Amino acid sequence: MNGLPQRVRIREVGPRDGFQNEPEVIPTEDKVRLIDMLAASGLPRIEVTSFVRPDVIPQLADADEVLETVQRPGGVAYSVLIPNERGLERALAHRDRFDEINVFLSATESHNKRNKNRTIAESIDDLGRTVAGAREEGLRCEGVISVVFGCPYEGEVSPGRVLEIAVRLIEMGCEEISFGDTTGMANPRQVGEFFAAARDRLGDVELTAHFHNTRGQGLANVLAALEQGIDSFESAFGELGGSPLTPGATGNISTEDLVSMLHEMEIDTGVDLERLLDVSRAIQELLGRPLGAHVLRAGPIDWQR
Amino acid sequence: MNGLPQRVRIREVGPRDGFQNEPEVIPTEDKVRLIDMLAASGLPRIEVTSFVRPDVIPQLADADEVLETVQRPGGVAYSVLIPNERGLERALAHRDRFDEINVFLSATESHNKRNKNRTIAESIDDLGRTVAGAREEGLRCEGVISVVFGCPYEGEVSPGRVLEIAVRLIEMGCEEISFGDTTGMANPRQVGEFFAAARDRLGDVELTAHFHNTRGQGLANVLAALEQGIDSFESAFGELGGSPLTPGATGNISTEDLVSMLHEMEIDTGVDLERLLDVSRAIQELLGRPLGAHVLRAGPIDWQR
Repeated sequence: MNGLPQRVRIREVGPRDGFQNEPEVIPTEDKVRLIDMLAASGLPRIEVTSFVRPDVIPQLADADEVLETVQRPGGVAYSVLIPNERGLERALAHRDRFDEINVFLSATESHNKRNKNRTIAESIDDLGRTVAGAREEGLRCEGVISVVFGCPYEGEVSPGRVLEIAVRLIEMGCEEISFGDTTGMANPRQVGEFFAAARDRLGDVELTAHFHNTRGQGLANVLAALEQGIDSFESAFGELGGSPLTPGATGNISTEDLVSMLHEMEIDTGVDLERLLDVSRAIQELLGRPLGAHVLRAGPIDWQR
Repeated sequence: MNGLPQRVRIREVGPRDGFQNEPEVIPTEDKVRLIDMLAASGLPRIEVTSFVRPDVIPQLADADEVLETVQRPGGVAYSVLIPNERGLERALAHRDRFDEINVFLSATESHNKRNKNRTIAESIDDLGRTVAGAREEGLRCEGVISVVFGCPYEGEVSPGRVLEIAVRLIEMGCEEISFGDTTGMANPRQVGEFFAAARDRLGDVELTAHFHNTRGQGLANVLAALEQGIDSFESAFGELGGSPLTPGATGNISTEDLVSMLHEMEIDTGVDLERLLDVSRAIQELLGRPLGAHVLRAGPIDWQR
């Protein structure tokens, strides 16, 4: 298994992707406490909130207060999800409180229509203006493409079409592209082939993999991406999250399980797994239901036993 | 991802490994009904029961009746787990009702002591007599080695020691060796390295991988084994099973999730996933609790949608 990266960067998306999908609104003070614990666990990147419309997603209506209240320890990059120019305007009121934005669209017209009520071409125009505005403010921009490995409405997705969209995002100034398996349809063969092609086509831009564990293949897909040299991943503590648009879709891959696998494979993440598990236990207690993360239940491997 | 097998053989171990670990004894007629459904789903191999001491494992006290009652459709190989010569003697009363036996021991002295109350050397002697007896009856023999990738009592396990044990099993007449990650401690790098070494050392004997999903890495470990050309796997429908000796150890990898991943990777199994899911729903209903298999919850991918 040569060619695996020695170090992987994880972006924790639970505070945005996870909290957004909880039926109950999590109190702001709990969000802040959990985000501070995540930052203290050694995670290098955290997506803290989103400036979406509060009437549409009340779960994130406290974006301003969360951003203003979280600690900002050195070495942790905070990102916010920005749906449009209006969202960017709101976020920029807190310009010194975050480092990156992420903007998003879908790989298929049907999913983009339902998620953003736009054609892909319209979304690219919108995102171009948002990214330009963010870059003027010195913010790093990540472009996120959804349903890259399969669409619940259209089925198969052409990798060529995905890479065309990625090229447009890079041209508009995105320094990182995240490829989302939004509804857990990816398999390892497909993932390996996709990232081999993406690396060829997109060159040196940062390529990030975002998998869901809907059908239990999340970490197998991570392995397939690692084998193509991908060293940037997004995951959610506790296995929180999942797309509200797609019934039956379960959560993101769990950050605990991802960190555990990487460490066992002697790939560094900078994360203290025990401290991360403390955060998972805290959110599990708050939500009052068992979460899906395996290492949360089984505990880390104790090789000293 | 060259070199992946085009076809994989799955041995369903739920009726033995799964039913044995349920706190409640499953009624014999339900076992038979479920095993018949499993056979009808296209699974090529099923471990139907074990001839262990009924006072120690009451869950499998009905081994004789199960063996005598299940249908025996063509093309499905039935195996029984045999702990010792006494177990073989009991099984041979039903010689025409099964095709294979499996015998087992652990890769570490501590685990073997707790599981079999023997040293490894004593177990090898015992198994040698059992395998000789079975082969005289024309039965195929599988040797199963437990805690190959890590031991809950001893920690790291030497691959060289495992392969020495495997060589002894092959010398005594085993035609297949199964390597068990009994408590879910394996990681993909280790699995890849192990099977590369095993293939080199053990030659043409059938090598089978048996993973647990304790820390969510089960299918990632399958991928690592596939990449080494391993094309024989053991799994349990519903994600049933787990070692009663090790607290916190969750089930075997789920047959549904394994089949789903392999089919999505264009690797043939012969299994009809929809029929397999019918069996999983039936055992879930019988046990009255949600089972861990992901595809059971999310459903197979519908590419036509």
